Amino acid sequence: MKLSELETPRLILERGKLEQNVRTMREHMGRLGVPLRPHGKTAKCIDVIRLALEGQPGGITVSTLKEAEYYFGHGIKDLLYAVGIAPVKLDHIAKLRKEGAEITIILDSMEQAQVAATYGKKHDETFPVLIELDSDGHRSGLTPADPELIGIGRFLHDTKGVELKGVLTHAGGSYGAKAIDEIKKAAVQERDVAVACAQLLRAAGLPCPVVSVGSTPTATYAEDLAGVTEVRAGVYMFFDLVMAGLGVCAIEDMAISVLTSVIGYQKKKGWVITDAGWMAMSRDRGTSRQTTDQGYGIVCSVDGTPIPDYIVDSTNQEHGIIVRRDGGAMDFNRFPIGSLLRILPNHACATATMHDRYHVVNRTDDVIDVWQRVHGW
Amino acid sequence: MKLSELETPRLILERGKLEQNVRTMREHMGRLGVPLRPHGKTAKCIDVIRLALEGQPGGITVSTLKEAEYYFGHGIKDLLYAVGIAPVKLDHIAKLRKEGAEITIILDSMEQAQVAATYGKKHDETFPVLIELDSDGHRSGLTPADPELIGIGRFLHDTKGVELKGVLTHAGGSYGAKAIDEIKKAAVQERDVAVACAQLLRAAGLPCPVVSVGSTPTATYAEDLAGVTEVRAGVYMFFDLVMAGLGVCAIEDMAISVLTSVIGYQKKKGWVITDAGWMAMSRDRGTSRQTTDQGYGIVCSVDGTPIPDYIVDSTNQEHGIIVRRDGGAMDFNRFPIGSLLRILPNHACATATMHDRYHVVNRTDDVIDVWQRVHGW
Repeated sequence: MKLSELETPRLILERGKLEQNVRTMREHMGRLGVPLRPHGKTAKCIDVIRLALEGQPGGITVSTLKEAEYYFGHGIKDLLYAVGIAPVKLDHIAKLRKEGAEITIILDSMEQAQVAATYGKKHDETFPVLIELDSDGHRSGLTPADPELIGIGRFLHDTKGVELKGVLTHAGGSYGAKAIDEIKKAAVQERDVAVACAQLLRAAGLPCPVVSVGSTPTATYAEDLAGVTEVRAGVYMFFDLVMAGLGVCAIEDMAISVLTSVIGYQKKKGWVITDAGWMAMSRDRGTSRQTTDQGYGIVCSVDGTPIPDYIVDSTNQEHGIIVRRDGGAMDFNRFPIGSLLRILPNHACATATMHDRYHVVNRTDDVIDVWQRVHGW
Repeated sequence: MKLSELETPRLILERGKLEQNVRTMREHMGRLGVPLRPHGKTAKCIDVIRLALEGQPGGITVSTLKEAEYYFGHGIKDLLYAVGIAPVKLDHIAKLRKEGAEITIILDSMEQAQVAATYGKKHDETFPVLIELDSDGHRSGLTPADPELIGIGRFLHDTKGVELKGVLTHAGGSYGAKAIDEIKKAAVQERDVAVACAQLLRAAGLPCPVVSVGSTPTATYAEDLAGVTEVRAGVYMFFDLVMAGLGVCAIEDMAISVLTSVIGYQKKKGWVITDAGWMAMSRDRGTSRQTTDQGYGIVCSVDGTPIPDYIVDSTNQEHGIIVRRDGGAMDFNRFPIGSLLRILPNHACATATMHDRYHVVNRTDDVIDVWQRVHGW
């Protein structure tokens, strides 16, 4: 199959860039002496995760139980479900655990700990638990100053049905950094909060074998992860325009793009109309908060070379509107009806989930593989 | 199965509201004397479309060839693919036509007409074609003033491989209306542009049996559709907060919502954290341009009753953050850990596509059906 014969829109994955991205992160983590627990939420694809797992212990992170079930069905047993546990999900987790999946859960409240323990005792199950920490005010989690930390830790350690395995944090605030120095500081803070909480638990006589941190920006710019036992990240496999805007990658590192056809013009307005709308790109406008707003994505020629003067300025469900970034006159001859383009997306997780599969390419016109994704819950 | 036992997040569809919405539109169109060609792009589900087709001729509109294939596989033959044709899709359309699908295509350029004709002649196929019109400057299409209109019409009529069937327009600009009067004017304009172009074609001696218009706002507020032969709309089946903000429906008319669990708090910030993030709600922020910004959605109790003081203010992939709309103190006792809520979405098309299926409910706690959706391309 040729790339240039694909029906549009299609999600394209450049294998060489994917391999380079996972190699770079693997080597960086190797220098820091910390193993990776790749996050499966961006790719949602076993073929991608197998590449990310090369040279690693073999455990992964997931964001849904559908991912957990999918990856477990493909032979991955060590699964960290990194969203605060909801009681209604314990049945599903217990079922997967009885089938052999080693699923760890996370929580940040005594209520969750009690519900998990009660369920575990009743169903002869012991849930391994990480306590979720808040290292940057971004979302969920306890801080070293929260008095509940030790209480929850002791409850998890002392109560049947649950087992205290350690702590976890995610420096999600690093996505909003304005400079590399801020990301480096976020990486230090993420590590420091996690290590401090681990030490508080240990000082209280509690075990804390796992100290888990991670986000693609902080993982990329971490310089010292002493005390950390694993790093979680997912976006680094593909990268995206938000990461490029942060300085975490170059635009040339991006491994995914959306193949689209030119289907029309509004010549007086300077618009080129394509068939990659928000259904193909997602509604994510993450770069709108950055120095350079990339609209819904940067236009590339069909071989993936950026044409940086042109962006997808707006979208409808199945239509994208390309304009010149500077508002200048459109060169319509550059975009004949039926010609193919590729669009680099703002946010890899959001764009990829709109598609059922990756069309995997190398630097030729050949589609060398089709990799399926998992979708929904 | 009970609603209150579902794993979260889940897409909930209230059958009674769906039936009421399709009945209201059917009766309105009946009064106007124009048949509906329901748009399959919102529901992407045969069970929903079957309800929408009651009392109608049986043809539908689709936004992707995957939808066309899916609906055709469920017995719907008359399919209007309402996105400007891309050459790379003609193979797929010809294949479906040879299997018996009566697929009509649309276009607004001589280049597209020539490609379709050349393909049709070569492969012994005749593509029925509607000429796409621009009634409001919103997106694609020709206007009555465009000299190409008659030229393209004549080419489609005279050339083998293609057949001129009529004209089509979509008043997408009506989504940005600020008052009902604006929507009524958009409905008049949509009809007038379509009818004017049909008359121009007929005055040139060309056939124009089909005059197709539609958008949910203009369909709802159209008062006279003389000269129009069919109306296309999709969102009206479910409605959403954007439509409610426009005055096209009441919030109580909305048939879909996302079931979610409370999984935590940040008490000092007044945040209730749930497991319905942007993956469950979509990144659509359509109400941000309206008078009342609904964030990522309005919070409801598990039975679907809105709690209008509370909205989902921000989201991560699998996390939603609920705040009080007025910034006042959060009543955390109202949202115990593990309790279930429902979130009304901004944009039905965008939220529904994040899910693989609908859990269909009535006014009880019982899930009465599970309806599958089609996803991707």
